[in-house]
Amino acid sequence: MSPPVLFWVGYVPCLCSGLLCLLAVSFWSARWHGGFSWDGSALQFNWHPVLMVAGLVVLYGNAVVLFRVPFTWRQKKLTWKLVHGSLMLLALLLSVLGLCAVFDNHRSSNIPDMYSLHSWVGICTVIMFAFQWLLGLAGFLLPCSPPRFRSNLKPVHVWMGKAILILSLTSCISGINEQLFFTLTTQDGKPYNSLPAEAKFANSLGLLIVAFVLVVFGILSNDDWQRPETHHESAPYFLHTGRPEDQKTYSHQHFKKATLSM
Amino acid sequence: MSPPVLFWVGYVPCLCSGLLCLLAVSFWSARWHGGFSWDGSALQFNWHPVLMVAGLVVLYGNAVVLFRVPFTWRQKKLTWKLVHGSLMLLALLLSVLGLCAVFDNHRSSNIPDMYSLHSWVGICTVIMFAFQWLLGLAGFLLPCSPPRFRSNLKPVHVWMGKAILILSLTSCISGINEQLFFTLTTQDGKPYNSLPAEAKFANSLGLLIVAFVLVVFGILSNDDWQRPETHHESAPYFLHTGRPEDQKTYSHQHFKKATLSM
Repeated sequence: MSPPVLFWVGYVPCLCSGLLCLLAVSFWSARWHGGFSWDGSALQFNWHPVLMVAGLVVLYGNAVVLFRVPFTWRQKKLTWKLVHGSLMLLALLLSVLGLCAVFDNHRSSNIPDMYSLHSWVGICTVIMFAFQWLLGLAGFLLPCSPPRFRSNLKPVHVWMGKAILILSLTSCISGINEQLFFTLTTQDGKPYNSLPAEAKFANSLGLLIVAFVLVVFGILSNDDWQRPETHHESAPYFLHTGRPEDQKTYSHQHFKKATLSM
Repeated sequence: MSPPVLFWVGYVPCLCSGLLCLLAVSFWSARWHGGFSWDGSALQFNWHPVLMVAGLVVLYGNAVVLFRVPFTWRQKKLTWKLVHGSLMLLALLLSVLGLCAVFDNHRSSNIPDMYSLHSWVGICTVIMFAFQWLLGLAGFLLPCSPPRFRSNLKPVHVWMGKAILILSLTSCISGINEQLFFTLTTQDGKPYNSLPAEAKFANSLGLLIVAFVLVVFGILSNDDWQRPETHHESAPYFLHTGRPEDQKTYSHQHFKKATLSM
């Protein structure tokens, strides 16, 4: 199987499992917990798992592998940096909205905040994500970013990017597990340990999220799918001249390498 | 700061945080849950978190980064492959023993097995680990391993190695969270949501495990700390001639590269 075909063999499951995660987490809240609202009630809490899975896992994971999609290599890196940064900002906003949903619900119901390990790991994930986004903006997009800072930042940005995805997965799995212990109680006659339909469904959702994250790590671990780097592309946007000769240099010398390495 | 110093700046926290994780998880069981026994009681269950953190996280994480320690590069790779494989086998045995501890306790107390998402992710982790160990033995140590199989296996082995560590972390965090909801109940007058001393301690243990795993990923993400590969070293052991001229080739051509890349 040729390398580009192999890339799509990894990327299509990434897109499909991400979409399935979104559908499954929405179905879980809608089918077993009464749907959605924004009034401080339990229906507002239902936005929490949906927004966290959508922002911190699915959108984040897709934004992480964006530079690996071969057709983006033919185009200016700056364009895809902006798309990457915008998707990450949207993912961050969804996550913050997801936190608001749970804090509002806790305030309305007099439930204490931030006591479980799930909440400690989750808040660390979102803070780390916000820090990473600001650092990425300063290092890779702002015109005043010094080249030395940029080159030192790159390995840290890559490591923190993976760390955030690992913490997102950890937060999601511990959160789904916690939620099932809360809602599937003996009082309702369908305890978690009797594995009713909701438990089987939500446990499977958890495994689907695991599968999505591992597919993203599989794509990241293949160096052949890395966008070929050029010197002028690693500079922030004010150094991109946009001159045809620059474009030509990229096209002839580096895209050839990219195509070969595919 | 020179690269070898930088390596130790990452490796010393890895060793220290791993040791702290072991001490903290043992202290948690001993101080708040009555210590250890192997009689099917709750005291047998106490072995479960200790053995899982020891095997699936601390020993596993240290075995993963073994090839990155610069002083091992001067020695035969086969020696370190055997050490790596042995440490992994020990980690696997500790994990299986950790599963026995919880299954025995559940049988004695008539508690159903394998219903929570924590248990589903945990069992997948251990099965994947066992599969990875057998595949690693077949591909990298057995004399009959075909070179093509070995070279195809290597990226899969690297990806699965990271996947297992991610799943181990996920299992540990969801497990600690679940255990705190079980044991810190309103009936005992110290519910989890009032954050008693045990909750603060065990939540901090969770963050310490997160820190250990992220440090391991930090070490893995630096390509400069990869052991320099030679052709004959990537072959299984029956192809190692041990001839002085082979050793010379390694020493002069490749160790020089290794030293430079440090």
